Amino acid sequence: MARDPRYDILFEPVKIGPVTARNRFFQVPHCNGMGHQHPHGHAAMRGMKAEGGWAVVSTEECEIHPSGDVTPYVEARIWDDHDIPYLSMMTEAVHRHGSLAAVELVHNGPSSSNLYSREVPIGPVHQPTSYYPFQARAMDRQDIRDYRRWHRDAAIRAKKAGFDIVYVYAGHDLSMPMHFLQKRRNQRIDEYGGSLENRIRLFREVIEDAKSAVGDTCGIAVRFAVDEMMGKDGIAADGEAKDIVAMLAELPDLWDVNLSTWKHDSQTSRFSEEGFQEPFTAFVKTLTTKPVVGVGRYTSPDRMVSLIKKGVLDMIGAARPSIADPYLPKKIEEGRLEDIRECIGCNICVSGDYTITPIRCTQNPTMGEEWRKGWHPELISPKASNDRVLIVGGGPAGLEAARALGLRGYDVALAESSTELGGRVNKESRLPGLSAWGRVRDYRLGQIGKMTNVETYLDSRLNAANILEYGFERVVLATGCHWRKDGVGRSHAYPIPGLDKANVFSPDGIMAGRLPGSGTVLVYDDDLFYLAGVLAERLAKAGLKVIYVTTGDTASSWTTNTLELLVINKHLRKLGIRVIPSRDLVGVKDGVAQLEHSYGEEPEFIPVDAIVPVTARLPEEALYQSLIANPDALKDAGIKSVTRIGDCLAPGLIAYAVYSGHRYARELDANDMGEVKFRRPLPLMATS
Amino acid sequence: MARDPRYDILFEPVKIGPVTARNRFFQVPHCNGMGHQHPHGHAAMRGMKAEGGWAVVSTEECEIHPSGDVTPYVEARIWDDHDIPYLSMMTEAVHRHGSLAAVELVHNGPSSSNLYSREVPIGPVHQPTSYYPFQARAMDRQDIRDYRRWHRDAAIRAKKAGFDIVYVYAGHDLSMPMHFLQKRRNQRIDEYGGSLENRIRLFREVIEDAKSAVGDTCGIAVRFAVDEMMGKDGIAADGEAKDIVAMLAELPDLWDVNLSTWKHDSQTSRFSEEGFQEPFTAFVKTLTTKPVVGVGRYTSPDRMVSLIKKGVLDMIGAARPSIADPYLPKKIEEGRLEDIRECIGCNICVSGDYTITPIRCTQNPTMGEEWRKGWHPELISPKASNDRVLIVGGGPAGLEAARALGLRGYDVALAESSTELGGRVNKESRLPGLSAWGRVRDYRLGQIGKMTNVETYLDSRLNAANILEYGFERVVLATGCHWRKDGVGRSHAYPIPGLDKANVFSPDGIMAGRLPGSGTVLVYDDDLFYLAGVLAERLAKAGLKVIYVTTGDTASSWTTNTLELLVINKHLRKLGIRVIPSRDLVGVKDGVAQLEHSYGEEPEFIPVDAIVPVTARLPEEALYQSLIANPDALKDAGIKSVTRIGDCLAPGLIAYAVYSGHRYARELDANDMGEVKFRRPLPLMATS
Repeated sequence: MARDPRYDILFEPVKIGPVTARNRFFQVPHCNGMGHQHPHGHAAMRGMKAEGGWAVVSTEECEIHPSGDVTPYVEARIWDDHDIPYLSMMTEAVHRHGSLAAVELVHNGPSSSNLYSREVPIGPVHQPTSYYPFQARAMDRQDIRDYRRWHRDAAIRAKKAGFDIVYVYAGHDLSMPMHFLQKRRNQRIDEYGGSLENRIRLFREVIEDAKSAVGDTCGIAVRFAVDEMMGKDGIAADGEAKDIVAMLAELPDLWDVNLSTWKHDSQTSRFSEEGFQEPFTAFVKTLTTKPVVGVGRYTSPDRMVSLIKKGVLDMIGAARPSIADPYLPKKIEEGRLEDIRECIGCNICVSGDYTITPIRCTQNPTMGEEWRKGWHPELISPKASNDRVLIVGGGPAGLEAARALGLRGYDVALAESSTELGGRVNKESRLPGLSAWGRVRDYRLGQIGKMTNVETYLDSRLNAANILEYGFERVVLATGCHWRKDGVGRSHAYPIPGLDKANVFSPDGIMAGRLPGSGTVLVYDDDLFYLAGVLAERLAKAGLKVIYVTTGDTASSWTTNTLELLVINKHLRKLGIRVIPSRDLVGVKDGVAQLEHSYGEEPEFIPVDAIVPVTARLPEEALYQSLIANPDALKDAGIKSVTRIGDCLAPGLIAYAVYSGHRYARELDANDMGEVKFRRPLPLMATS
Repeated sequence: MARDPRYDILFEPVKIGPVTARNRFFQVPHCNGMGHQHPHGHAAMRGMKAEGGWAVVSTEECEIHPSGDVTPYVEARIWDDHDIPYLSMMTEAVHRHGSLAAVELVHNGPSSSNLYSREVPIGPVHQPTSYYPFQARAMDRQDIRDYRRWHRDAAIRAKKAGFDIVYVYAGHDLSMPMHFLQKRRNQRIDEYGGSLENRIRLFREVIEDAKSAVGDTCGIAVRFAVDEMMGKDGIAADGEAKDIVAMLAELPDLWDVNLSTWKHDSQTSRFSEEGFQEPFTAFVKTLTTKPVVGVGRYTSPDRMVSLIKKGVLDMIGAARPSIADPYLPKKIEEGRLEDIRECIGCNICVSGDYTITPIRCTQNPTMGEEWRKGWHPELISPKASNDRVLIVGGGPAGLEAARALGLRGYDVALAESSTELGGRVNKESRLPGLSAWGRVRDYRLGQIGKMTNVETYLDSRLNAANILEYGFERVVLATGCHWRKDGVGRSHAYPIPGLDKANVFSPDGIMAGRLPGSGTVLVYDDDLFYLAGVLAERLAKAGLKVIYVTTGDTASSWTTNTLELLVINKHLRKLGIRVIPSRDLVGVKDGVAQLEHSYGEEPEFIPVDAIVPVTARLPEEALYQSLIANPDALKDAGIKSVTRIGDCLAPGLIAYAVYSGHRYARELDANDMGEVKFRRPLPLMATS
């Protein structure tokens, strides 16, 4: 199909100093948990973005010096010439598809840890490092000269590595120019502190240094956070940010603007809509003639066109949408809008960086597998047999298995016991704030709907006899799981005493609309991720009095890995929910819940009318057990394999269910790789 | 010097199945944050233990399969044959010094994350994984067969890699045999669950598998946690542990016994004494004829002898004492007891593993630098000039610089303004629980005391004029730092309003014995490590009413990295201290402290008589500034360099101060390595 002419504007080239981007799609720098430790995987992942049509593909933060070491976080490194070949792997992968490669040079100053390098952290003034119980020292003039030299040398190495665009980074409350810009952090009394003119000096110098060092062949971009979301205590779009942009307006070749800190920049769909940054960043283009890039979880091409036409942005920046769909630009270009796999804004991608592991994505199960498993987000090998596949269960695992198997050419029947496809995605996307998660279902329904070799059957609860009778060669069980009601979970190996006699509502029940009628509900969170908090919100919005008790030290404590911890904890209080952290529910008796304190404070006794334990799940595996109980019957029926996928195998994240379904489809009739089912980077025996 | 004959018993060989340890010193498995990512550094660090006389040197946990991947933690790996050459680097380093190399094979079952491998976690039953919001699935019989095969294959690979001892690991609430042993975790209804005989089955089978696979040439050790410190809910020394040891008594070639979890196994000196495990592990030798290894932070050779003679242990196990002094056995052997660098029990070593970074040690600044900087804990290159060195300040940085420079042969003068050497170590080791930290001072005073080329001067406060007058070629400033009293720190860029008019006691004052006379004291912790909690304890023990307020979500939140978070949080409550987490001190007015909640609950107003802000420190740099203000005077005085070290450069941990002093000594008159001052492992370009 051809491109709709109304999107032509998105495919105009954009000049960025001495280089030209072939269209307006710009993958801004984003962390990915691969960095210097997984150079092959990193290069393949970035190359896939170029292949999918992103005209500019950037690295994540790239550390320029050991004194700005952000270990344990795994980012890129350009400390010395040893790093060049690894970065070249990425630039070559990007260039292969006609895109420009950008590198985000960074020295995080007092936000560094130097836990690996053991160098002393440095910053504008003596201060505690941002995250560790030791301090950074104030830089003297020689330190500033050194820093500028490191940055310049890094730019030269970046050019050698093949980068087309070199970033100077002042964002996310992190990098050295940002620390010098911030009035509250920069209380120097020399020419680098005090007035804005002084505080901007280092930023300006580093931009000038980069231009003079590599500006002949490389575009010099700046990444600047225009609002720290802290009012006049910080840089603000209606405050100093305007002056800063005005003062440097024509100096860089490109402005990439966003919000600070990262949690404000990468807000989840639970708390913000597509385009949430526009009100803050819109002013930038009024102050510069240079191209402006901005982000806002944009997945709608019409919205993108509107942004360009309104003069808000020149290039559509994206991190998360490019992760969910590396082929987003190409699909617009080819007029295949319905094939776009839209980011759901869940920030599972972010959790990779936070847990020091390669990035994954709920929507795109191939993310992070491009090199190590050779998975492509759009391509998959044709079927290797004529086996027909019966998939039982139409949740995220079953839908993705059906989609990917269908793409391979297998004949697939998908049987769903309820009257709608989507499984847990349906249930969860109806909870407050999670509607965008429905895209997991929508994308797959759209794809399957186009396939003549995939049949779906609703309202079709199958038993073992049915399955034996149908005689598909391959049976895949994606029957999901259910939440326990007995309190067993991470903190309780045995049922919580009295819960069996209490008025218990399971998470499944609440998601199905079965709520307590009135009174006080205690939500007990021993799961520690998002669900208990969302259920508490659901109950509060239904007019119930909600008490949220958690064994974590904050509400939804694991959401620190999705950047949501602060906003969730504030949000629950705003809803009037009483949050009781660091407490375990140890018993219920006569309508009174007994809470034990994690650290030995007095037990608390709370009268409650209902309890919602969010602790652990059990797979729906009865069908599986009854099938495998009779191997002869399976054989007689011509069934070669019975395989569980998704939550039916092991309850996990939606991302895991999608991955599980995809993996099944990839591995059917494929060669076994042995016990380690992926390639991995190994250290050089010889070293520098 | 010759060995004292009363220690002869420590140097008797011990037979471990088919292999023989040359003495009774056994470096038990310990994490180190290097693992598979830093194989060169790991091999050199382990080799140093062998060189120092440890007859057995073990790896850390060594993952046997991708489904037991503990990412982000960096442990050893033996997933397939690709890993063998890296592990061989270690065994060769250990063999070079006549020691035996042991490998701790492990599959952590539901305590795994599989964040890197993306495999589905497995365990005895369906359950949440220990640390992550997704679940492990129950193993069926085929899974158990697979697990056994993986373990057996790993043992065979370990033998190929040159290991002499292969561990089967059931400790720390972590590994698969442990999960099967635990009644509360193993509610299987097949032959692997239920009765103890069933629950022990897998453990026994894996030991038998290892023996049959490699037992002809390798000793088969078990590591077993005899007490989970949770009474009858867990394995207990006075409960099932006795039965377990009795049932398997003669099966392995060696028993390595300890406590579970890790926080109980590696208790800090703040909360326990040398030998704290003895009451729990002493029974083991009564049930087996095989050699028994145990730990307990043993550094006293007399205590070690007593343990052997009493029949409590056959071999002295050590992790932390071998980190603080890799040469501990050799020093006993050579009759150099006064040279032993005793572990202070601070668990900075553990924080390396927790922060995914190579291990370091407060006492031993060469730990983790053996390969990458070529630092040896006992050897150092002779001086390369006749420069004389003046060190100003006798805290940990100054003392270590003096010691290491003295060892190099430099003439050193150490001037201390107070009447005792030790600096912050003196102050802190007088606080409750921290007396063992005084070993940082004691070791160095002992060493310096033997050196004729190091002179120390007490009560000698120097000014710039003095220093110019003396004319040492090298001037080193180790003048330390002081705590701020204005509240500026991580949470406050500006002084806290009203604090200037409040009754403020600084941490320095309290450490010097200047306490409030009576009433209520608010300790404000924005530092988040140990000090504020210790000061609160000091004040409570002085009879004051103490309120501890912290911006962390728990008291002393960073102590999660030293395994102390739980014990500290309970301890403070036991002392009657009111702990208020997730609160910031935002102002003080008329004797009332105003607290702001991190997540939007109502502000709290608390009447207080005194406030102790623990927020940030400032270097004592006046002397430095006055010296460098006049370069000509320095030149005229023949002073070639003025260098700050330790807290005077950047306030940090005691470990950092020692490291800073050591580094100065190493780098004096040495060649500059450029910007990256150490070797680092790099990935292979080609891969599997």
